Amino acid sequence: MAYDPQNVFAKILRGEIPSAKVLETDGALAFLDIGPVNKGHVLVIPKVEAATLSELPDDASAHVGALLPRLCRAVREATGAEGLNVIVNHGEVAGQTVHHVHWHIIPRFRGDAVRWPWPHDSYDGDELERMRLRIAAALGPASSSS
Amino acid sequence: MAYDPQNVFAKILRGEIPSAKVLETDGALAFLDIGPVNKGHVLVIPKVEAATLSELPDDASAHVGALLPRLCRAVREATGAEGLNVIVNHGEVAGQTVHHVHWHIIPRFRGDAVRWPWPHDSYDGDELERMRLRIAAALGPASSSS
Repeated sequence: MAYDPQNVFAKILRGEIPSAKVLETDGALAFLDIGPVNKGHVLVIPKVEAATLSELPDDASAHVGALLPRLCRAVREATGAEGLNVIVNHGEVAGQTVHHVHWHIIPRFRGDAVRWPWPHDSYDGDELERMRLRIAAALGPASSSS
Repeated sequence: MAYDPQNVFAKILRGEIPSAKVLETDGALAFLDIGPVNKGHVLVIPKVEAATLSELPDDASAHVGALLPRLCRAVREATGAEGLNVIVNHGEVAGQTVHHVHWHIIPRFRGDAVRWPWPHDSYDGDELERMRLRIAAALGPASSSS
């Protein structure tokens, strides 16, 4: 989708509104979500104008990827969380509310308020293989090789 | 946590059990989840023995990160999904069931069976700043510079 430079994360990146920063690199900014799922909930945004993960350049996505293990360890250490959910919501139907791609790092605790049941569908007959071929085709000719 | 080389994704990586592969690189494998949240649900695993994202080497995490935009575009194209959730569950409390770190790429459709409400907590007084300092401290001395 078209990138709106007035979205709240663009304003944070330009320093027009403040944020509770925990990590900043040449390519990304990590800061506390002020309406956390659980306290210590961190957002990570690349310093690139991309509304969704599909539109993010590979190198910018790799840069955020490289920061995730360290951020996960730090959030767990700082919050005492037993676990984490690391989530990118892509599109409004998936829960994305700010249209600058962002990773959520959400500390999880036994007995917390989060209830995220995972429904499960199943494949019948050759549906699995047909889906595999469809995605492989969409990935392009080099999809199954290194 | 200790890595169990008998987990199902380790067996898939060794070729001991089959998978519906959509993409393979030197460093990662992407394949269909056979019990999908929605059809077209893809799993991406690094070819490194790491139980959780905290334990994954930065370069292996970056490698998966670099693949995500292309995989997101392909899953959307192949399934017609309006959106996606890209999720790493870290630890059993967060829903991790196979203890080899993995990314879920879940196609989302308006009116699908997924209901993932996001509860929201809030920070009082100086709690936000104290949490920021705690995470920054856990990240180490270079946490706020590039």
